[in-house]
Amino acid sequence: MKRTKLRYGMVGGSKGAFIGSVHRWAIGIEESAELVAGSFHPDYEESKKTGIFYGLKEERIYHDYKEMAEKEAQRPDKIDFVSIVTPNALHYEVAKAFVQAGINVYCEKPLCFEIDQAEELMQLAKEKGILFAVSYSYTGYGMVKFAKEIIAKGGIGKIINVNAEYLQDWLIDEIGDGNVSTSKLSVWRMDPKHAGASNCVGDIGTHINGTVNYMTGLKVKKVAAVLDRFGLALDVNANILIEFNNGAHGIYSSSQVCVGHYNGLVIRIFGTEGAIEWIQEAPDQLKVTKKGLPEQLYHRGAGNIDGIAALRNHIPVGHPEGLVMAFANIFRAFQDALLKKINGEELSPEDLDFPSVEDGVDGVKFIHASLKSDKKDAAWVELE
Amino acid sequence: MKRTKLRYGMVGGSKGAFIGSVHRWAIGIEESAELVAGSFHPDYEESKKTGIFYGLKEERIYHDYKEMAEKEAQRPDKIDFVSIVTPNALHYEVAKAFVQAGINVYCEKPLCFEIDQAEELMQLAKEKGILFAVSYSYTGYGMVKFAKEIIAKGGIGKIINVNAEYLQDWLIDEIGDGNVSTSKLSVWRMDPKHAGASNCVGDIGTHINGTVNYMTGLKVKKVAAVLDRFGLALDVNANILIEFNNGAHGIYSSSQVCVGHYNGLVIRIFGTEGAIEWIQEAPDQLKVTKKGLPEQLYHRGAGNIDGIAALRNHIPVGHPEGLVMAFANIFRAFQDALLKKINGEELSPEDLDFPSVEDGVDGVKFIHASLKSDKKDAAWVELE
Amino acid sequence: MKRTKLRYGMVGGSKGAFIGSVHRWAIGIEESAELVAGSFHPDYEESKKTGIFYGLKEERIYHDYKEMAEKEAQRPDKIDFVSIVTPNALHYEVAKAFVQAGINVYCEKPLCFEIDQAEELMQLAKEKGILFAVSYSYTGYGMVKFAKEIIAKGGIGKIINVNAEYLQDWLIDEIGDGNVSTSKLSVWRMDPKHAGASNCVGDIGTHINGTVNYMTGLKVKKVAAVLDRFGLALDVNANILIEFNNGAHGIYSSSQVCVGHYNGLVIRIFGTEGAIEWIQEAPDQLKVTKKGLPEQLYHRGAGNIDGIAALRNHIPVGHPEGLVMAFANIFRAFQDALLKKINGEELSPEDLDFPSVEDGVDGVKFIHASLKSDKKDAAWVELE
Amino acid sequence: MKRTKLRYGMVGGSKGAFIGSVHRWAIGIEESAELVAGSFHPDYEESKKTGIFYGLKEERIYHDYKEMAEKEAQRPDKIDFVSIVTPNALHYEVAKAFVQAGINVYCEKPLCFEIDQAEELMQLAKEKGILFAVSYSYTGYGMVKFAKEIIAKGGIGKIINVNAEYLQDWLIDEIGDGNVSTSKLSVWRMDPKHAGASNCVGDIGTHINGTVNYMTGLKVKKVAAVLDRFGLALDVNANILIEFNNGAHGIYSSSQVCVGHYNGLVIRIFGTEGAIEWIQEAPDQLKVTKKGLPEQLYHRGAGNIDGIAALRNHIPVGHPEGLVMAFANIFRAFQDALLKKINGEELSPEDLDFPSVEDGVDGVKFIHASLKSDKKDAAWVELE
Repeated sequence: MKRTKLRYGMVGGSKGAFIGSVHRWAIGIEESAELVAGSFHPDYEESKKTGIFYGLKEERIYHDYKEMAEKEAQRPDKIDFVSIVTPNALHYEVAKAFVQAGINVYCEKPLCFEIDQAEELMQLAKEKGILFAVSYSYTGYGMVKFAKEIIAKGGIGKIINVNAEYLQDWLIDEIGDGNVSTSKLSVWRMDPKHAGASNCVGDIGTHINGTVNYMTGLKVKKVAAVLDRFGLALDVNANILIEFNNGAHGIYSSSQVCVGHYNGLVIRIFGTEGAIEWIQEAPDQLKVTKKGLPEQLYHRGAGNIDGIAALRNHIPVGHPEGLVMAFANIFRAFQDALLKKINGEELSPEDLDFPSVEDGVDGVKFIHASLKSDKKDAAWVELE
Repeated sequence: MKRTKLRYGMVGGSKGAFIGSVHRWAIGIEESAELVAGSFHPDYEESKKTGIFYGLKEERIYHDYKEMAEKEAQRPDKIDFVSIVTPNALHYEVAKAFVQAGINVYCEKPLCFEIDQAEELMQLAKEKGILFAVSYSYTGYGMVKFAKEIIAKGGIGKIINVNAEYLQDWLIDEIGDGNVSTSKLSVWRMDPKHAGASNCVGDIGTHINGTVNYMTGLKVKKVAAVLDRFGLALDVNANILIEFNNGAHGIYSSSQVCVGHYNGLVIRIFGTEGAIEWIQEAPDQLKVTKKGLPEQLYHRGAGNIDGIAALRNHIPVGHPEGLVMAFANIFRAFQDALLKKINGEELSPEDLDFPSVEDGVDGVKFIHASLKSDKKDAAWVELE
Repeated sequence: MKRTKLRYGMVGGSKGAFIGSVHRWAIGIEESAELVAGSFHPDYEESKKTGIFYGLKEERIYHDYKEMAEKEAQRPDKIDFVSIVTPNALHYEVAKAFVQAGINVYCEKPLCFEIDQAEELMQLAKEKGILFAVSYSYTGYGMVKFAKEIIAKGGIGKIINVNAEYLQDWLIDEIGDGNVSTSKLSVWRMDPKHAGASNCVGDIGTHINGTVNYMTGLKVKKVAAVLDRFGLALDVNANILIEFNNGAHGIYSSSQVCVGHYNGLVIRIFGTEGAIEWIQEAPDQLKVTKKGLPEQLYHRGAGNIDGIAALRNHIPVGHPEGLVMAFANIFRAFQDALLKKINGEELSPEDLDFPSVEDGVDGVKFIHASLKSDKKDAAWVELE
Repeated sequence: MKRTKLRYGMVGGSKGAFIGSVHRWAIGIEESAELVAGSFHPDYEESKKTGIFYGLKEERIYHDYKEMAEKEAQRPDKIDFVSIVTPNALHYEVAKAFVQAGINVYCEKPLCFEIDQAEELMQLAKEKGILFAVSYSYTGYGMVKFAKEIIAKGGIGKIINVNAEYLQDWLIDEIGDGNVSTSKLSVWRMDPKHAGASNCVGDIGTHINGTVNYMTGLKVKKVAAVLDRFGLALDVNANILIEFNNGAHGIYSSSQVCVGHYNGLVIRIFGTEGAIEWIQEAPDQLKVTKKGLPEQLYHRGAGNIDGIAALRNHIPVGHPEGLVMAFANIFRAFQDALLKKINGEELSPEDLDFPSVEDGVDGVKFIHASLKSDKKDAAWVELE
């Protein structure tokens, strides 16, 4: 009989943890996967509490991800995929364990810290024939998908310029007066052991890269980056010149110290025939301007929205969906593809409309090229 | 032992139905109630499919709401509350059955069609000592709560004027050329048997009333209403002068034929010391202007948001939450109150921060006063 | 020889006075009329200073408007038109003097205080065959003209609803605590001797009426008005239900006590095929939405703007023009018509694209109907 | 006797020419200078027509700027300043002639094409002791001045990042399909003989530089520039990394091929204590955000605006002023300084609140550094 529902496990994400909750909510909204296994916290008691709360059998609440990968792989009712929501520093090893165990992966971004790790994961995933999503969550918004389709159909012509930014201000107190912050999150973000070699580019700059790549179908060829640390261990502000693989140029600005900006991902794509603008904080709208014509403002859920964007729609036009629904859209595509795979159906490229391990690799390369360029006084550095 | 989790049932809301899904998603996000019983559809087979999908025991998938109310009331593990998401015409009888069975109720709006029905439900609920919420969903948004607290603390002084509107355009095709629509939803909305005596005021005008009441603590004293039907059976456009119980005046405009408006609930409250503006399509923001000072734009989740609005917060500032989270906030308050009640704790007025059967009664009165005024050539009519 | 330049005089508007300056600047921008005569101030010395500053011959700086009308009428090089920028209470008598002297008039709004005065001026102007403009300045904006043409061509179908407002907050201090204001302007505005029987409706409500009439070609048939005085002598807040001569309804809200609003004239016209929105504080833009399509945002000066709006354009798209240019546009039309008349050419209706004495009469009727309705507890009152 | 009114001449700007008209309108609004001399067009007949139209004596309508500079210098009633509104290629020689003749200069931007020319003019102006303004018009807006004062007083702390852009789309047709444009203006802009070595950076990139310098008091130390020509002779798109003389970084994007952008100068200044945002197309507003507080939106003309911004105000809050008023503000400061100088009063630094020849020099250096960097593959190039 054809499977219609999936089983999943989670590593990280004890009850109340932010991104773990978002994954559970998003999966819950799509209603086609059930949480059945997990290792939610390094402290087993903590983990057990979460597992019991979500109704897991005790035998499937594991002491660590290694045990989980190993034991799940042997079960006849094993999990169909694992959601990885650990701290970033663990993504690589956790993902590797599950890939090696032949279990499909939905991993939070960044995929990992180093390029060779990323490529290893990509290679392993290919060998094992598993599906591997990396959570560039903003690609899940319906209007980002609408933008992608307009651009793909030539709606704004050849792309000639990209102006994208991702501005926040939550680290501003770290640089004001040299005092050490007591915020747990900001300490974590500022520590290379936990955050990797880059903070600002690693955490949010990669989202620009991932979202622009998704929207445009372009890839960044090289970068000329200026990173600002203001005396901290890691970057908190970055202005990066971009050259794309089609020859167009652009600029990516990301910052965690721009006062008055909260989660300000703004993407503007300029082509020979038109332009597109999308703002994460007003995600249900898309501005599309055709050369010589007035700007047009499209709305998620309206009757004039078609294609994949019309499909990835939960509530009527004008009723804001929000970020969790964007996650849900990615899980929707990932799970539909998984079900097809499990049921032995063929997967078309359209079925793979979710950010993948390849995009994860690309993100890691983007980070390292930016770091290298910054060290070389903003000289151009190609993505390897 | 203290209960920490609730059991709930649902009437209406077979899988895929819009508002039923929203309730399930919202309850799912709060993670403190489990769906265990239901009568999801008049067709039992349809109902069973939904029940099975959500893992219900077959014995708790009922043939109709009467059976459900009766049998649940007798179970030791009976549902703690019922979510009523049937068509509007059934709200009264379904709610009555559960209230009489002593089961707490979370009912979609409108509470019912007639004032005497509404008052009967209110009276019964009081007698039975149950909690009864009516889903004026926009009161659930964090920034609406923030507005409420600012106003309650005197932040904008004495209220002197209210300008509120709720504009949509989804019925515009009904009046363009006299053709009969084939849209199921619009047929339903235009039929007094299903929609009650009012369409536009009943469906969305009451949301203005409910949200303004919640924000300001005021009540509408009387209305002078002009309803437009454009040849249809029910109203699709309404401009209503308002007098509040504090003597202030205002205007409520609601419409389903205002092209270019989707779910345009906009509320502006003007006081002697300042003003507040909230826009449903950008729900995470609140504009607050103090007399003589620049406008201030507040954002849900920011460090400067306090009180109940800080509590009703799921994801960080700048990450849009959307309407389902507003529902979740109402369920949060309703369930917390319910848990306190069940656990024998005393309920303070703060615990009852959800729209109640009293608000539902008020909504029905608002509708009927508006209809009566319209019939009397827009003469002032008091809410009875 | 054909005249290409005009001579004008001014009553009121001594150097530095606001509205007199605006007239002189606007006329200066159009560069086809020269100031040659004036009675700028009741104090002759003050008047002379202004006249000398602007290079007038002393013989044409008059002691009062009566002398000016009389003497100018007899000169071979008499003024072609007079700009009347006195306090409102004087408009009637000053305008009457010049009309009787056969001199064309450009009068600030309101035309006068009483309906019979207004009709007398209209009648006299017709008898004398003069051109008589009344300065509903917002009709001068290019994008208001663009809106008018779109509507006239049926671009939004039949008009079914109008939602217009004009909100300010500059009188808020008058009602906060009962203290008497010391602001000269607000004292003046609150005194029926100077402001007429209405303050808020008279000063800004009429602008809504004038601008909506201009845009739509409709006239208000009747009003149901609630005016708020908050203990003051005259109204400072007004919510008015409207019925137009095509049967459509609407709402006009005007206020001088809505904190956070400065000169907030916002006009939204809804039709069976689309909608138009124009905002005075962003006057170079016009939002036009066609049924079923995304909103379109037009910009003054863009290549896609045609008709009269393209003609009334001073600087390129994206370079804000501002209110003085709107005045200039009205003077342009008025002066072009005047030159045609003087040169013996025939005037077509298109030549009379400026607010006229008829519009002034309509404005006075609107004020009085609103006052009368308010007295009758918001009963409908027809414009006489 | 103290002079209170000035005499001015104009080179370029025959009747109807855009920027010449703007100068005349702006000067007209300030009402303290009279046009008395000019050489408006290379064709003397054309020039004469303009001169006669504006009431000039024929003897002061000159055949060319050389004659004008020479003859005016010898008159006892000579012009107090000359407005230079010729094509850019002539600025240098015209300005030089008047400076050498000891006549004060108000020159359109760019000051000239080459750095040595610019420095020569600056040196000459110093030697001759004349006032020399260069028309970076956006510095004239009241809210830009308000921003400058807030920043100068430390209102946003130490500046750490600047994100500024100036996007237009009027040259998009030049690059769409390789066709040669027939637009006179775009041909002119694309010809190095007329436009200088840079088009996009020269025409609008310098406005970013001039306005940011004015607002912040910072200077650009070095640039890393990528210019796009898309096959044309000159640049039409530019993304430039900036390092300021205080060590902060930033990004300047300018473009004439960004569809849907008209005159999109947007300046965002980020400091350790707050941020400021100003948008040229909504020039009467200023967004100011203090760390940890809601955004604040200030409005030109409001009671809470003080300092020089309150002084440079023509009409009340909410009544849009537009770009010509910004020019007027610069002329106001320039003329006030000139009157002081002529009347033998001492000039304080505050008196010189207009963009000067030094700013003009800086602009030319910015252009050349950008061109040089672009040639060196976006390597950092210091402003010489």
